[in-house]
Amino acid sequence: MLASGGPIDAFWNMYAVHKTDEVLEILEQYKIGSLSPEDQKPIDLNDPFSKDPFRLPVFRINSKKPFNAEPPIELLTDSYITPNELFYVRNHLPVPEIDPDSHRISVDLGDSSIQLSLEDLKTKFKPVTITTTIQCAGNRRQEMSDFKTVGLSWGPCAIGTARWTGARVRDILLSAGFDPDDKTIKHVHFNGFDDDITNTSYGASIPKQKAMSLDGDVIIAYKMNGVDIPRDHGYPVRAIVPGYVGARNVKWLRQITVGSDESTSHWQMNDYKAFSPSTTFETANYKKAPSIQEMPVISAISVPKPGSIIDPEDGMVEVKGYAWSGGGRDIMRVDVSADGGNTWQEASLTKDDPDADDSAHCWAWTLWTAEVPVAAGKVEIICKAIDSANNCQPEWIGPIWNLRGFLTNAWHRVNVTVEN
Amino acid sequence: MLASGGPIDAFWNMYAVHKTDEVLEILEQYKIGSLSPEDQKPIDLNDPFSKDPFRLPVFRINSKKPFNAEPPIELLTDSYITPNELFYVRNHLPVPEIDPDSHRISVDLGDSSIQLSLEDLKTKFKPVTITTTIQCAGNRRQEMSDFKTVGLSWGPCAIGTARWTGARVRDILLSAGFDPDDKTIKHVHFNGFDDDITNTSYGASIPKQKAMSLDGDVIIAYKMNGVDIPRDHGYPVRAIVPGYVGARNVKWLRQITVGSDESTSHWQMNDYKAFSPSTTFETANYKKAPSIQEMPVISAISVPKPGSIIDPEDGMVEVKGYAWSGGGRDIMRVDVSADGGNTWQEASLTKDDPDADDSAHCWAWTLWTAEVPVAAGKVEIICKAIDSANNCQPEWIGPIWNLRGFLTNAWHRVNVTVEN
Repeated sequence: MLASGGPIDAFWNMYAVHKTDEVLEILEQYKIGSLSPEDQKPIDLNDPFSKDPFRLPVFRINSKKPFNAEPPIELLTDSYITPNELFYVRNHLPVPEIDPDSHRISVDLGDSSIQLSLEDLKTKFKPVTITTTIQCAGNRRQEMSDFKTVGLSWGPCAIGTARWTGARVRDILLSAGFDPDDKTIKHVHFNGFDDDITNTSYGASIPKQKAMSLDGDVIIAYKMNGVDIPRDHGYPVRAIVPGYVGARNVKWLRQITVGSDESTSHWQMNDYKAFSPSTTFETANYKKAPSIQEMPVISAISVPKPGSIIDPEDGMVEVKGYAWSGGGRDIMRVDVSADGGNTWQEASLTKDDPDADDSAHCWAWTLWTAEVPVAAGKVEIICKAIDSANNCQPEWIGPIWNLRGFLTNAWHRVNVTVEN
Repeated sequence: MLASGGPIDAFWNMYAVHKTDEVLEILEQYKIGSLSPEDQKPIDLNDPFSKDPFRLPVFRINSKKPFNAEPPIELLTDSYITPNELFYVRNHLPVPEIDPDSHRISVDLGDSSIQLSLEDLKTKFKPVTITTTIQCAGNRRQEMSDFKTVGLSWGPCAIGTARWTGARVRDILLSAGFDPDDKTIKHVHFNGFDDDITNTSYGASIPKQKAMSLDGDVIIAYKMNGVDIPRDHGYPVRAIVPGYVGARNVKWLRQITVGSDESTSHWQMNDYKAFSPSTTFETANYKKAPSIQEMPVISAISVPKPGSIIDPEDGMVEVKGYAWSGGGRDIMRVDVSADGGNTWQEASLTKDDPDADDSAHCWAWTLWTAEVPVAAGKVEIICKAIDSANNCQPEWIGPIWNLRGFLTNAWHRVNVTVEN
């Protein structure tokens, strides 16, 4: 079903309660026709992005080619599991077209190598399902950019939570003959099928410790929320590295290798690195700066939206949002304030992670709701979260600003007007 | 050797370069005599603390009974490994007297139980050595107290780093017949030999996941920096829980148990819990509040000392300190500022952890040095650290203040005067 020029099936899947004969009958009167095959958008063969998949028109698009887009915040926290069609998309290159039958994942260990088909992956290894939140390093970059320009902006929705099913990287490497005690090997590398014009593919690496630990839960996934992974999210297979920055969850996986050093990929060496607020493009030492891997504690307000006019009930307003921390750390508390941080209300926390008992760690986000007393007039609502390692969010952007605009995890602030 | 009424052997061990015939000859002229047995302090049998061990007079004592004291900051970061005699002491009760030959550790699993002698611990399990920093939840509480009173004050030296040798709790529990897959068991409890007047001993618990994980490195230690653990630090055996708050590293260990719930000990249930800045003693819900376990990122300046008058060299001052994060997270960067945070200098980091390669995680602190440009006059020097999960320290005490004064990890600030 199309509306506004794009498919709206995602909404139907999400709000399935409306999928009744009565509603369909009402909608029938608004039907303007059926799309004939010849009306479908022609494909420009000179455009490497021409074969990118269809996306919901509801996305806020930050870049069209490559496609970078996030869902609207009012939909983001409507469900604990983000519907596949609403999951933020962060592509670095055109979406590759991969034939699932002929696709092979090459596991290269230097002196030995194995090739795995999709069928091998599904049948030769114990399938595990991990519920994890994935977040882009640039989530909420807009706020950093507002403070001091840093390029491509993202709102607070470059984050989502899904159930991923696949095979453990640990099991795959062991089956390929990898010796986990080989101290010369310190990193596991993932290479994607997505190429740039020089035929260089997207790549990244993670510490061996993370990949091989029974507690690391690193998998090569072939299902996202119970169905084949959509093309935008890595069809047919991708790496899932729970608690790490999105950039290491390599999509369209074609190769796993191991090495004494990190991946030499552009995205490992010259991007996704953390710098001090005083570092400039002139002084940045990419070689010395650490790669961003585990993510810090973050939270954001999804309700009310910025600029809302609010009619409070008994002087109270309901505030909702998400909170998450990397490294499998749980969210212990979310504090919400509507008086500049003078007083804080503790939010009620919701976790709905079906794997929480099976996984040693808490990889998925916490949704929260708080009732906050508000005065009439212009009000700034603030939230901050504390994780299970008692880490908190910084108060403002200044001390964490960095030239690439990564890791924006300052207190989240939403300005609204409260009516009398 | 005594000086100022206490033993100074610790200094001699630390600055062993001075232990030469020439120096001893010079010192000879200052010798005032040898202590006769009858001059030794008499023991008051009515004082439960009368059998506490001798301590260096150099400690800053925050409480005498029970003994709570920290070393001076100028000595703290002089060596990567803190000498046993300078390690901060945080006792909750009198130091028990334990006969190492008759002492038994009871491992009680409900339906089975084993008793381990010190000899069993040393010979029946593979010895492992873990270098870890231990920090009191109240470290730097003085700053929180300065903001809003919170009781017993600690400076920034309730922290230290030592090499602990012992047996893995994992190995001990497995040898006692513990089934690691028993999902009804979620916590491992430690009980000490130190009793209060109601014969209730100090106790604490940690998640089973931490105790049983191969990566958790939880041990029952019998050596501290290669020698028997001093009485103040748990002689003959104590729990070492790397990356967790000091309070769970139970000293004078007498029992290990397992359970579906946390320890019911006062120190697990009604102390060492984290609260919001808006929580008061009236509204505090100890049952709901999470126990402090993993510690957040912290740093502190050890040189220059507060109130110093500095003669800068070419407009620069050398600043030194420590940085640490819980959970095995490494320190990625330490930023130092002498202009209120407008500009930051990156510090040089020193890690000297002999186990860094063998342990999956980084349990021990980072010492650092920075050269910082300073203007003449009153100057506030600030430091802040970033850990490998990209967590940072909060800017000031206000938003992290809590009624118990725990987890003071705001930017550390030292005020000095810079000469022209």
